[in-house]
Amino acid sequence: MTIHRITILGTGLIGASAGMALRAARFPGEIVGWDRHPSQVSLAMERGAVDTIAGDAIAAAVSSDLVLLSGPVFAIQDWMERLAPHLKPHQLVTDVGSVKVAIAARALPLFGGSGQAGFLPGHPMAGKEVSGAANADAQLFANAVWLFTEFTGHPLVAEWRTWVERFGCRTMDILAARHDEICAWVSHLPQFLSTALSAMLEDRFGDAPDLRAIGGRALREMTRLGASPYSMWRDIAHANEAEIADALLSMEQRLAYLRENLKTPELRDEFERANHFRTNR
Amino acid sequence: MTIHRITILGTGLIGASAGMALRAARFPGEIVGWDRHPSQVSLAMERGAVDTIAGDAIAAAVSSDLVLLSGPVFAIQDWMERLAPHLKPHQLVTDVGSVKVAIAARALPLFGGSGQAGFLPGHPMAGKEVSGAANADAQLFANAVWLFTEFTGHPLVAEWRTWVERFGCRTMDILAARHDEICAWVSHLPQFLSTALSAMLEDRFGDAPDLRAIGGRALREMTRLGASPYSMWRDIAHANEAEIADALLSMEQRLAYLRENLKTPELRDEFERANHFRTNR
Repeated sequence: MTIHRITILGTGLIGASAGMALRAARFPGEIVGWDRHPSQVSLAMERGAVDTIAGDAIAAAVSSDLVLLSGPVFAIQDWMERLAPHLKPHQLVTDVGSVKVAIAARALPLFGGSGQAGFLPGHPMAGKEVSGAANADAQLFANAVWLFTEFTGHPLVAEWRTWVERFGCRTMDILAARHDEICAWVSHLPQFLSTALSAMLEDRFGDAPDLRAIGGRALREMTRLGASPYSMWRDIAHANEAEIADALLSMEQRLAYLRENLKTPELRDEFERANHFRTNR
Repeated sequence: MTIHRITILGTGLIGASAGMALRAARFPGEIVGWDRHPSQVSLAMERGAVDTIAGDAIAAAVSSDLVLLSGPVFAIQDWMERLAPHLKPHQLVTDVGSVKVAIAARALPLFGGSGQAGFLPGHPMAGKEVSGAANADAQLFANAVWLFTEFTGHPLVAEWRTWVERFGCRTMDILAARHDEICAWVSHLPQFLSTALSAMLEDRFGDAPDLRAIGGRALREMTRLGASPYSMWRDIAHANEAEIADALLSMEQRLAYLRENLKTPELRDEFERANHFRTNR
Protein backbone atom coordinates (compact mmCIF):
# COMPACT_ATOMS: atom_id res chain seq x y z
CA MET A 1 0.00 0.00 0.00
CA THR A 2 1.43 3.34 -1.01
CA ILE A 3 -1.44 5.75 -0.37
CA HIS A 4 -0.68 6.91 3.17
CA ARG A 5 -2.19 10.36 3.19
CA ILE A 6 -5.28 11.58 1.31
CA THR A 7 -6.36 15.22 1.13
CA ILE A 8 -10.01 15.88 0.34
CA LEU A 9 -10.60 19.37 -1.07
CA GLY A 10 -14.31 20.07 -0.66
CA THR A 11 -15.88 18.23 2.27
CA GLY A 12 -19.52 18.65 1.31
CA LEU A 13 -21.91 15.77 0.65
CA ILE A 14 -19.67 13.74 -1.67
CA GLY A 15 -16.27 14.67 -0.20
CA ALA A 16 -17.30 13.95 3.39
CA SER A 17 -19.08 10.76 2.33
CA ALA A 18 -15.86 9.59 0.65
CA GLY A 19 -13.94 10.28 3.87
CA MET A 20 -16.49 8.36 5.92
CA ALA A 21 -16.46 5.51 3.38
CA LEU A 22 -12.64 5.36 3.57
CA ARG A 23 -12.87 5.08 7.35
CA ALA A 24 -15.60 2.44 7.14
CA ALA A 25 -13.35 0.52 4.71
CA ARG A 26 -10.56 0.74 7.33
CA PHE A 27 -8.23 3.02 5.38
CA PRO A 28 -5.23 3.08 7.75
CA GLY A 29 -3.68 6.37 6.64
CA GLU A 30 -4.42 10.00 7.37
CA ILE A 31 -7.33 11.89 5.83
CA VAL A 32 -6.85 15.65 5.64
CA GLY A 33 -9.81 17.90 4.83
CA TRP A 34 -10.28 21.41 3.53
CA ASP A 35 -13.40 23.30 2.50
CA ARG A 36 -13.99 26.93 1.55
CA HIS A 37 -16.66 26.94 4.26
CA PRO A 38 -14.81 26.25 7.56
CA SER A 39 -18.06 24.99 9.12
CA GLN A 40 -18.28 22.24 6.49
CA VAL A 41 -14.86 20.85 7.25
CA SER A 42 -15.45 21.12 11.02
CA LEU A 43 -18.63 19.14 10.57
CA ALA A 44 -16.79 16.64 8.39
CA MET A 45 -14.25 16.14 11.18
CA GLU A 46 -16.98 15.75 13.81
CA ARG A 47 -18.56 13.09 11.63
CA GLY A 48 -15.29 11.19 11.26
CA ALA A 49 -14.79 11.99 7.58
CA VAL A 50 -11.38 13.63 8.11
CA ASP A 51 -8.68 13.35 10.78
CA THR A 52 -7.13 16.74 10.28
CA ILE A 53 -8.30 20.13 9.05
CA ALA A 54 -5.85 21.77 6.67
CA GLY A 55 -5.10 25.43 7.24
CA ASP A 56 -3.58 25.69 3.77
CA ALA A 57 -5.12 23.54 1.07
CA ILE A 58 -2.12 23.60 -1.25
CA ALA A 59 0.34 22.71 1.53
CA ALA A 60 -1.91 19.78 2.50
CA ALA A 61 -2.09 18.60 -1.10
CA VAL A 62 1.66 18.86 -1.53
CA SER A 63 2.25 16.52 1.41
CA SER A 64 -0.37 13.94 0.32
CA ASP A 65 -0.18 10.89 -1.90
CA LEU A 66 -3.65 11.35 -3.30
CA VAL A 67 -5.83 14.46 -3.61
CA LEU A 68 -9.58 14.06 -4.04
CA LEU A 69 -11.30 17.08 -5.60
CA SER A 70 -14.97 17.24 -4.67
CA GLY A 71 -17.32 20.07 -5.58
CA PRO A 72 -18.99 21.75 -8.53
CA VAL A 73 -17.23 21.24 -11.88
CA PHE A 74 -15.78 24.76 -12.10
CA ALA A 75 -14.42 24.55 -8.55
CA ILE A 76 -12.71 21.30 -9.47
CA GLN A 77 -11.20 22.93 -12.56
CA ASP A 78 -9.95 25.84 -10.46
CA TRP A 79 -8.25 23.47 -8.03
CA MET A 80 -6.65 21.59 -10.92
CA GLU A 81 -5.09 24.86 -12.13
CA ARG A 82 -3.95 25.89 -8.68
CA LEU A 83 -2.56 22.53 -7.57
CA ALA A 84 -0.77 21.34 -10.70
CA PRO A 85 2.32 23.59 -10.40
CA HIS A 86 2.95 22.35 -6.84
CA LEU A 87 2.56 18.59 -7.29
CA LYS A 88 5.06 15.92 -8.26
CA PRO A 89 4.82 12.83 -10.51
CA HIS A 90 4.42 10.37 -7.61
CA GLN A 91 1.16 12.09 -6.60
CA LEU A 92 -2.30 11.36 -8.01
CA VAL A 93 -5.22 13.78 -8.25
CA THR A 94 -8.72 12.41 -8.81
CA ASP A 95 -12.11 14.08 -8.89
CA VAL A 96 -15.82 13.34 -8.55
CA GLY A 97 -17.12 15.92 -11.06
CA SER A 98 -20.42 15.30 -12.85
CA VAL A 99 -19.03 16.20 -16.30
CA LYS A 100 -15.93 14.56 -17.70
CA VAL A 101 -15.03 16.00 -21.13
CA ALA A 102 -14.44 19.47 -19.67
CA ILE A 103 -12.42 18.03 -16.77
CA ALA A 104 -10.25 15.86 -19.02
CA ALA A 105 -9.64 18.80 -21.37
CA ARG A 106 -8.51 20.96 -18.46
CA ALA A 107 -6.26 18.16 -17.15
CA LEU A 108 -4.48 17.64 -20.46
CA PRO A 109 -1.84 20.39 -20.14
CA LEU A 110 -1.61 20.13 -16.35
CA PHE A 111 -1.23 16.46 -15.45
CA GLY A 112 0.25 13.26 -16.72
CA GLY A 113 3.19 14.79 -18.56
CA SER A 114 6.85 14.78 -17.72
CA GLY A 115 7.40 16.11 -14.19
CA GLN A 116 3.62 16.41 -13.63
CA ALA A 117 1.36 14.63 -11.15
CA GLY A 118 -1.11 12.03 -12.38
CA PHE A 119 -4.82 12.63 -12.86
CA LEU A 120 -7.72 10.17 -12.78
CA PRO A 121 -11.11 11.58 -13.81
CA GLY A 122 -13.83 9.92 -11.74
CA HIS A 123 -17.56 10.20 -11.11
CA PRO A 124 -19.53 8.25 -8.51
CA MET A 125 -23.16 7.87 -9.68
CA ALA A 126 -24.50 8.64 -6.24
CA GLY A 127 -25.85 11.73 -4.58
CA LYS A 128 -28.77 13.29 -2.82
CA GLU A 129 -30.98 16.30 -3.42
CA VAL A 130 -29.58 17.77 -0.19
CA SER A 131 -25.99 18.91 0.15
CA GLY A 132 -23.35 19.41 2.81
CA ALA A 133 -21.34 17.33 5.27
CA ALA A 134 -24.44 17.11 7.48
CA ASN A 135 -25.99 14.76 4.91
CA ALA A 136 -22.84 12.74 4.25
CA ASP A 137 -23.09 8.98 4.61
CA ALA A 138 -20.46 6.23 4.56
CA GLN A 139 -23.00 4.11 2.67
CA LEU A 140 -23.75 6.71 -0.01
CA PHE A 141 -21.77 4.81 -2.63
CA ALA A 142 -22.95 1.32 -1.72
CA ASN A 143 -24.30 -0.45 -4.83
CA ALA A 144 -23.54 2.56 -7.01
CA VAL A 145 -21.25 2.69 -10.02
CA TRP A 146 -18.07 4.76 -9.78
CA LEU A 147 -17.09 5.73 -13.29
CA PHE A 148 -13.57 6.43 -14.48
CA THR A 149 -12.60 7.94 -17.79
CA GLU A 150 -9.17 7.13 -19.14
CA PHE A 151 -6.48 9.77 -18.83
CA THR A 152 -2.90 8.64 -18.33
CA GLY A 153 -1.64 5.71 -16.33
CA HIS A 154 -0.33 6.26 -12.79
CA PRO A 155 1.00 3.86 -10.15
CA LEU A 156 -1.67 4.84 -7.60
CA VAL A 157 -4.70 4.36 -9.86
CA ALA A 158 -5.15 0.65 -9.07
CA GLU A 159 -4.95 1.29 -5.32
CA TRP A 160 -7.54 4.09 -5.39
CA ARG A 161 -9.88 1.91 -7.45
CA THR A 162 -9.53 -0.80 -4.83
CA TRP A 163 -10.58 1.63 -2.10
CA VAL A 164 -13.56 2.75 -4.17
CA GLU A 165 -14.62 -0.86 -4.60
CA ARG A 166 -14.41 -1.28 -0.81
CA PHE A 167 -17.03 1.49 -0.54
CA GLY A 168 -19.42 -1.05 -2.09
CA CYS A 169 -19.10 0.43 -5.60
CA ARG A 170 -18.78 -1.22 -8.92
CA THR A 171 -16.09 0.54 -10.95
CA MET A 172 -16.52 1.00 -14.69
CA ASP A 173 -14.41 2.57 -17.42
CA ILE A 174 -16.07 4.76 -19.99
CA LEU A 175 -14.96 7.26 -22.61
CA ALA A 176 -15.42 10.85 -21.43
CA ALA A 177 -17.67 11.78 -24.36
CA ARG A 178 -19.92 8.73 -23.82
CA HIS A 179 -20.02 9.58 -20.11
CA ASP A 180 -21.27 13.09 -20.80
CA GLU A 181 -23.80 11.86 -23.35
CA ILE A 182 -25.29 9.17 -21.09
CA CYS A 183 -25.27 11.37 -18.01
CA ALA A 184 -27.13 14.06 -19.95
CA TRP A 185 -29.99 11.58 -20.42
CA VAL A 186 -30.01 9.58 -17.18
CA SER A 187 -28.87 12.19 -14.66
CA HIS A 188 -28.96 15.75 -16.00
CA LEU A 189 -32.29 15.42 -17.85
CA PRO A 190 -34.07 13.94 -14.79
CA GLN A 191 -32.70 16.84 -12.73
CA PHE A 192 -33.89 19.53 -15.13
CA LEU A 193 -37.25 17.79 -15.59
CA SER A 194 -37.75 17.78 -11.85
CA THR A 195 -36.65 21.40 -11.52
CA ALA A 196 -38.96 22.53 -14.33
CA LEU A 197 -41.92 20.59 -12.91
CA SER A 198 -41.37 21.93 -9.40
CA ALA A 199 -40.91 25.53 -10.59
CA MET A 200 -44.01 25.32 -12.79
CA LEU A 201 -46.14 23.99 -9.94
CA GLU A 202 -44.76 26.70 -7.66
CA ASP A 203 -45.80 29.38 -10.17
CA ARG A 204 -49.21 27.91 -10.86
CA PHE A 205 -50.30 26.71 -7.43
CA GLY A 206 -47.99 28.38 -4.93
CA ASP A 207 -48.90 27.16 -1.50
CA ALA A 208 -52.43 26.01 -2.41
CA PRO A 209 -53.35 23.66 0.44
CA ASP A 210 -55.38 21.30 -1.72
CA LEU A 211 -52.43 20.74 -4.05
CA ARG A 212 -50.22 19.97 -1.07
CA ALA A 213 -52.83 17.63 0.38
CA ILE A 214 -53.57 15.74 -2.81
CA GLY A 215 -50.08 15.17 -4.18
CA GLY A 216 -48.94 11.64 -3.39
CA ARG A 217 -45.88 9.50 -4.01
CA ALA A 218 -45.77 10.27 -7.74
CA LEU A 219 -45.52 14.00 -7.10
CA ARG A 220 -43.01 13.59 -4.27
CA GLU A 221 -40.73 11.42 -6.39
CA MET A 222 -40.97 13.50 -9.54
CA THR A 223 -40.19 16.73 -7.68
CA ARG A 224 -37.62 15.39 -5.17
CA LEU A 225 -34.71 16.66 -7.23
CA GLY A 226 -36.37 20.09 -7.30
CA ALA A 227 -34.59 20.63 -3.97
CA SER A 228 -31.16 20.28 -5.61
CA PRO A 229 -28.85 23.28 -5.29
CA TYR A 230 -28.26 25.66 -8.20
CA SER A 231 -24.62 26.04 -7.13
CA MET A 232 -23.87 22.52 -8.32
CA TRP A 233 -26.12 22.40 -11.37
CA ARG A 234 -25.06 25.73 -12.83
CA ASP A 235 -21.64 24.25 -13.61
CA ILE A 236 -23.11 21.08 -15.09
CA ALA A 237 -25.48 23.14 -17.27
CA HIS A 238 -22.53 25.15 -18.54
CA ALA A 239 -20.08 22.31 -18.97
CA ASN A 240 -22.48 19.89 -20.70
CA GLU A 241 -24.82 22.35 -22.35
CA ALA A 242 -24.98 20.84 -25.84
CA GLU A 243 -25.86 17.34 -24.61
CA ILE A 244 -28.39 18.62 -22.09
CA ALA A 245 -30.07 20.90 -24.63
CA ASP A 246 -30.34 17.93 -26.99
CA ALA A 247 -31.99 15.81 -24.30
CA LEU A 248 -34.37 18.61 -23.28
CA LEU A 249 -35.43 19.28 -26.87
CA SER A 250 -36.10 15.58 -27.41
CA MET A 251 -38.21 15.53 -24.26
CA GLU A 252 -40.20 18.56 -25.41
CA GLN A 253 -40.91 16.83 -28.71
CA ARG A 254 -41.85 13.59 -26.97
CA LEU A 255 -44.31 15.38 -24.67
CA ALA A 256 -45.87 17.17 -27.66
CA TYR A 257 -46.26 13.83 -29.43
CA LEU A 258 -47.91 12.31 -26.39
CA ARG A 259 -50.17 15.36 -25.97
CA GLU A 260 -51.32 15.09 -29.58
CA ASN A 261 -52.06 11.40 -29.10
CA LEU A 262 -53.93 11.33 -25.80
CA LYS A 263 -56.94 9.80 -27.58
CA THR A 264 -55.22 7.72 -30.28
CA PRO A 265 -53.78 4.18 -30.29
CA GLU A 266 -50.30 5.78 -30.42
CA LEU A 267 -50.68 6.27 -26.67
CA ARG A 268 -50.76 2.50 -26.21
CA ASP A 269 -47.52 2.10 -28.17
CA GLU A 270 -45.88 4.77 -26.04
CA PHE A 271 -46.95 2.97 -22.83
CA GLU A 272 -45.64 -0.30 -24.28
CA ARG A 273 -42.24 1.22 -25.04
CA ALA A 274 -42.13 2.67 -21.52
CA ASN A 275 -43.19 -0.65 -20.00
CA HIS A 276 -40.43 -2.38 -21.95
CA PHE A 277 -37.82 0.10 -20.73
CA ARG A 278 -38.83 -0.59 -17.14
CA THR A 279 -39.12 -4.35 -17.55
CA ASN A 280 -35.51 -4.55 -18.68
CA ARG A 281 -34.16 -2.64 -15.69
CA MET B 1 -73.80 0.24 11.82
CA THR B 2 -75.88 -0.38 8.74
CA ILE B 3 -73.31 -1.50 6.15
CA HIS B 4 -73.43 -5.29 6.55
CA ARG B 5 -72.46 -6.44 3.10
CA ILE B 6 -70.11 -4.80 0.64
CA THR B 7 -69.61 -5.91 -2.94
CA ILE B 8 -66.36 -4.94 -4.63
CA LEU B 9 -66.60 -4.97 -8.41
CA GLY B 10 -63.05 -5.09 -9.71
CA THR B 11 -60.62 -6.79 -7.33
CA GLY B 12 -57.38 -5.55 -8.85
CA LEU B 13 -54.80 -3.49 -6.99
CA ILE B 14 -57.16 -0.89 -5.52
CA GLY B 15 -60.26 -3.07 -5.07
CA ALA B 16 -58.38 -5.90 -3.37
CA SER B 17 -56.42 -3.41 -1.24
CA ALA B 18 -59.73 -1.88 -0.09
CA GLY B 19 -61.00 -5.34 0.89
CA MET B 20 -57.80 -6.07 2.80
CA ALA B 21 -57.96 -2.66 4.47
CA LEU B 22 -61.58 -3.30 5.50
CA ARG B 23 -60.51 -6.59 7.10
CA ALA B 24 -57.52 -4.95 8.80
CA ALA B 25 -59.92 -2.32 10.16
CA ARG B 26 -62.12 -5.16 11.51
CA PHE B 27 -65.10 -4.65 9.23
CA PRO B 28 -67.47 -7.25 10.69
CA GLY B 29 -69.71 -7.79 7.66
CA GLU B 30 -69.37 -9.77 4.47
CA ILE B 31 -67.19 -8.71 1.56
CA VAL B 32 -68.22 -10.10 -1.81
CA GLY B 33 -65.90 -9.83 -4.78
CA TRP B 34 -66.20 -9.99 -8.55
CA ASP B 35 -63.70 -9.37 -11.30
CA ARG B 36 -63.86 -9.85 -15.06
CA HIS B 37 -60.71 -11.93 -14.67
CA PRO B 38 -61.67 -14.92 -12.46
CA SER B 39 -58.01 -15.36 -11.45
CA GLN B 40 -57.96 -11.85 -9.95
CA VAL B 41 -60.90 -12.50 -7.66
CA SER B 42 -59.56 -15.95 -6.68
CA LEU B 43 -56.29 -14.29 -5.73
CA ALA B 44 -58.19 -11.56 -3.86
CA MET B 45 -59.96 -14.27 -1.84
CA GLU B 46 -56.70 -16.10 -1.13
CA ARG B 47 -55.24 -12.84 0.14
CA GLY B 48 -58.21 -12.22 2.45
CA ALA B 49 -59.61 -9.28 0.49
CA VAL B 50 -63.02 -10.90 -0.06
CA ASP B 51 -65.00 -13.60 1.74
CA THR B 52 -67.10 -14.69 -1.18
CA ILE B 53 -66.73 -14.77 -4.94
CA ALA B 54 -69.86 -13.61 -6.75
CA GLY B 55 -70.98 -15.70 -9.70
CA ASP B 56 -73.24 -12.89 -10.87
CA ALA B 57 -72.03 -9.35 -10.23
CA ILE B 58 -75.46 -7.73 -10.48
CA ALA B 59 -77.07 -10.24 -8.13
CA ALA B 60 -74.26 -9.62 -5.61
CA ALA B 61 -74.70 -5.86 -5.87
CA VAL B 62 -78.47 -6.12 -5.47
CA SER B 63 -78.05 -7.94 -2.14
CA SER B 64 -75.38 -5.54 -0.78
CA ASP B 65 -75.63 -2.34 1.22
CA LEU B 66 -72.65 -0.76 -0.46
CA VAL B 67 -71.06 -1.38 -3.85
CA LEU B 68 -67.47 -0.31 -4.47
CA LEU B 69 -66.60 0.15 -8.13
CA SER B 70 -62.88 -0.23 -8.75
CA GLY B 71 -61.19 -0.18 -12.14
CA PRO B 72 -60.47 2.05 -15.11
CA VAL B 73 -62.81 5.03 -15.48
CA PHE B 74 -64.78 3.64 -18.43
CA ALA B 75 -65.29 0.31 -16.66
CA ILE B 76 -66.68 2.20 -13.67
CA GLN B 77 -69.03 4.12 -15.94
CA ASP B 78 -70.21 0.88 -17.56
CA TRP B 79 -70.98 -0.62 -14.16
CA MET B 80 -72.89 2.51 -13.16
CA GLU B 81 -75.13 2.08 -16.22
CA ARG B 82 -75.62 -1.63 -15.65
CA LEU B 83 -76.25 -1.50 -11.91
CA ALA B 84 -78.46 1.57 -11.57
CA PRO B 85 -81.70 -0.04 -12.83
CA HIS B 86 -81.38 -2.87 -10.28
CA LEU B 87 -80.55 -0.93 -7.11
CA LYS B 88 -82.79 0.67 -4.49
CA PRO B 89 -82.59 3.97 -2.58
CA HIS B 90 -81.23 2.38 0.62
CA GLN B 91 -78.12 1.26 -1.28
CA LEU B 92 -74.98 3.31 -1.88
CA VAL B 93 -72.57 3.00 -4.79
CA THR B 94 -69.12 4.54 -4.51
CA ASP B 95 -66.10 4.45 -6.80
CA VAL B 96 -62.33 4.95 -6.81
CA GLY B 97 -61.99 6.39 -10.33
CA SER B 98 -59.10 8.74 -11.13
CA VAL B 99 -61.32 11.30 -12.90
CA LYS B 100 -64.37 12.79 -11.25
CA VAL B 101 -66.19 15.19 -13.61
CA ALA B 102 -66.94 12.40 -16.09
CA ILE B 103 -68.05 10.05 -13.30
CA ALA B 104 -70.33 12.65 -11.68
CA ALA B 105 -71.85 13.51 -15.06
CA ARG B 106 -72.62 9.87 -15.71
CA ALA B 107 -74.10 9.46 -12.23
CA LEU B 108 -76.47 12.41 -12.58
CA PRO B 109 -79.36 10.66 -14.39
CA LEU B 110 -78.74 7.29 -12.72
CA PHE B 111 -78.35 7.87 -8.99
CA GLY B 112 -79.63 10.09 -6.21
CA GLY B 113 -83.07 10.71 -7.64
CA SER B 114 -86.42 9.43 -6.53
CA GLY B 115 -86.35 5.64 -6.32
CA GLN B 116 -82.66 5.54 -7.21
CA ALA B 117 -79.68 4.34 -5.18
CA GLY B 118 -77.17 6.84 -3.82
CA PHE B 119 -73.79 7.58 -5.33
CA LEU B 120 -70.62 8.89 -3.72
CA PRO B 121 -67.75 9.77 -6.09
CA GLY B 122 -64.43 8.93 -4.42
CA HIS B 123 -60.74 8.78 -5.25
CA PRO B 124 -57.99 7.48 -2.98
CA MET B 125 -54.69 9.19 -3.85
CA ALA B 126 -52.76 5.97 -3.60
CA GLY B 127 -51.56 3.44 -6.08
CA LYS B 128 -48.58 1.64 -7.50
CA GLU B 129 -47.00 1.29 -10.91
CA VAL B 130 -47.87 -2.40 -10.78
CA SER B 131 -51.42 -3.69 -10.92
CA GLY B 132 -53.47 -6.67 -9.83
CA ALA B 133 -54.57 -8.36 -6.62
CA ALA B 134 -51.06 -9.84 -6.29
CA ASN B 135 -49.78 -6.36 -5.43
CA ALA B 136 -52.67 -5.41 -3.14
CA ASP B 137 -51.80 -4.20 0.34
CA ALA B 138 -53.96 -3.42 3.38
CA GLN B 139 -51.61 -0.50 4.08
CA LEU B 140 -51.83 0.99 0.57
CA PHE B 141 -54.05 3.83 1.79
CA ALA B 142 -52.19 4.59 5.02
CA ASN B 143 -51.31 8.30 5.21
CA ALA B 144 -52.97 8.96 1.84
CA VAL B 145 -55.85 11.31 1.14
CA TRP B 146 -59.17 9.80 0.04
CA LEU B 147 -61.02 12.47 -1.90
CA PHE B 148 -64.79 12.74 -2.21
CA THR B 149 -66.65 15.02 -4.58
CA GLU B 150 -70.14 16.05 -3.57
CA PHE B 151 -73.04 14.36 -5.26
CA THR B 152 -76.24 13.83 -3.29
CA GLY B 153 -76.59 12.99 0.36
CA HIS B 154 -77.17 9.40 1.43
CA PRO B 155 -77.54 7.76 4.85
CA LEU B 156 -74.54 5.45 4.31
CA VAL B 157 -72.03 8.13 3.28
CA ALA B 158 -70.89 8.94 6.82
CA GLU B 159 -70.36 5.28 7.65
CA TRP B 160 -68.29 4.60 4.51
CA ARG B 161 -66.15 7.65 5.22
CA THR B 162 -65.52 6.30 8.71
CA TRP B 163 -64.26 3.01 7.27
CA VAL B 164 -62.01 4.88 4.87
CA GLU B 165 -60.55 6.85 7.76
CA ARG B 166 -59.88 3.58 9.56
CA PHE B 167 -57.70 2.60 6.58
CA GLY B 168 -55.35 5.35 7.79
CA CYS B 169 -56.65 7.89 5.25
CA ARG B 170 -57.44 11.52 5.63
CA THR B 171 -60.72 12.27 3.86
CA MET B 172 -61.19 15.52 1.99
CA ASP B 173 -64.04 17.09 0.04
CA ILE B 174 -63.30 18.77 -3.24
CA LEU B 175 -65.31 20.00 -6.21
CA ALA B 176 -65.15 17.57 -9.14
CA ALA B 177 -63.72 20.19 -11.54
CA ARG B 178 -61.00 21.21 -9.08
CA HIS B 179 -60.22 17.54 -8.50
CA ASP B 180 -59.69 16.94 -12.20
CA GLU B 181 -57.60 20.10 -12.55
CA ILE B 182 -55.29 19.33 -9.63
CA CYS B 183 -54.97 15.65 -10.50
CA ALA B 184 -53.95 16.62 -14.05
CA TRP B 185 -50.94 18.44 -12.57
CA VAL B 186 -49.94 16.29 -9.59
CA SER B 187 -50.88 12.81 -10.79
CA HIS B 188 -51.58 12.62 -14.52
CA LEU B 189 -48.71 14.89 -15.62
CA PRO B 190 -46.13 12.97 -13.54
CA GLN B 191 -47.42 9.76 -15.14
CA PHE B 192 -47.17 11.03 -18.70
CA LEU B 193 -43.77 12.62 -18.02
CA SER B 194 -42.49 9.30 -16.75
CA THR B 195 -44.01 7.41 -19.67
CA ALA B 196 -42.54 9.84 -22.21
CA LEU B 197 -39.10 9.75 -20.57
CA SER B 198 -39.07 5.95 -20.40
CA ALA B 199 -40.28 5.54 -23.98
CA MET B 200 -37.73 8.07 -25.26
CA LEU B 201 -34.86 6.30 -23.47
CA GLU B 202 -36.10 2.96 -24.81
CA ASP B 203 -36.02 4.33 -28.37
CA ARG B 204 -32.65 6.01 -28.01
CA PHE B 205 -30.69 3.54 -25.91
CA GLY B 206 -32.62 0.27 -26.03
CA ASP B 207 -30.84 -2.23 -23.86
CA ALA B 208 -27.45 -0.45 -23.91
CA PRO B 209 -25.61 -1.96 -20.94
CA ASP B 210 -23.76 1.24 -20.02
CA LEU B 211 -27.04 3.15 -19.73
CA ARG B 212 -28.42 0.43 -17.48
CA ALA B 213 -25.26 0.42 -15.37
CA ILE B 214 -24.96 4.17 -14.99
CA GLY B 215 -28.56 5.12 -14.23
CA GLY B 216 -28.99 5.68 -10.49
CA ARG B 217 -31.77 6.64 -8.12
CA ALA B 218 -32.79 9.71 -10.17
CA LEU B 219 -33.43 7.61 -13.25
CA ARG B 220 -35.19 4.85 -11.30
CA GLU B 221 -37.54 7.31 -9.63
CA MET B 222 -38.27 9.37 -12.71
CA THR B 223 -39.08 6.28 -14.80
CA ARG B 224 -40.83 4.17 -12.13
CA LEU B 225 -44.28 5.12 -13.41
CA GLY B 226 -43.17 4.07 -16.89
CA ALA B 227 -44.25 0.58 -15.79
CA SER B 228 -47.88 1.71 -15.33
CA PRO B 229 -50.48 -0.09 -17.42
CA TYR B 230 -52.00 1.52 -20.51
CA SER B 231 -55.35 -0.12 -19.69
CA MET B 232 -55.84 2.24 -16.77
CA TRP B 233 -54.29 5.38 -18.25
CA ARG B 234 -56.11 5.23 -21.57
CA ASP B 235 -59.37 6.03 -19.79
CA ILE B 236 -57.80 8.85 -17.77
CA ALA B 237 -56.28 10.36 -20.93
CA HIS B 238 -59.70 10.28 -22.59
CA ALA B 239 -61.76 11.44 -19.64
CA ASN B 240 -59.47 14.31 -18.59
CA GLU B 241 -57.91 15.16 -21.94
CA ALA B 242 -58.28 18.96 -21.86
CA GLU B 243 -56.67 19.37 -18.45
CA ILE B 244 -53.87 16.92 -19.22
CA ALA B 245 -53.12 18.55 -22.58
CA ASP B 246 -52.94 21.92 -20.80
CA ALA B 247 -50.47 20.57 -18.24
CA LEU B 248 -48.34 18.86 -20.92
CA LEU B 249 -48.19 22.00 -23.06
CA SER B 250 -47.12 24.05 -20.04
CA MET B 251 -44.42 21.52 -19.30
CA GLU B 252 -43.15 21.63 -22.91
CA GLN B 253 -42.92 25.42 -22.69
CA ARG B 254 -41.18 25.25 -19.32
CA LEU B 255 -38.57 22.82 -20.63
CA ALA B 256 -37.95 25.04 -23.68
CA TYR B 257 -37.48 28.03 -21.37
CA LEU B 258 -35.01 26.11 -19.24
CA ARG B 259 -33.18 24.83 -22.34
CA GLU B 260 -32.81 28.38 -23.65
CA ASN B 261 -31.46 29.52 -20.28
CA LEU B 262 -28.93 26.81 -19.43
CA LYS B 263 -26.21 29.47 -19.33
CA THR B 264 -28.15 32.49 -18.06
CA PRO B 265 -29.04 33.69 -14.55
CA GLU B 266 -32.66 32.68 -15.29
CA LEU B 267 -31.55 29.14 -14.46
CA ARG B 268 -30.83 30.26 -10.89
CA ASP B 269 -34.33 31.71 -10.55
CA GLU B 270 -35.82 28.48 -11.85
CA PHE B 271 -33.85 26.44 -9.27
CA GLU B 272 -34.97 28.86 -6.55
CA ARG B 273 -38.63 28.47 -7.47
CA ALA B 274 -38.18 24.69 -7.50
CA ASN B 275 -36.35 24.78 -4.14
CA HIS B 276 -39.20 26.84 -2.70
CA PHE B 277 -41.80 24.38 -3.94
CA ARG B 278 -39.97 21.53 -2.25
CA THR B 279 -39.23 23.43 0.96
CA ASN B 280 -42.93 23.99 1.50
CA ARG B 281 -43.86 20.35 1.12
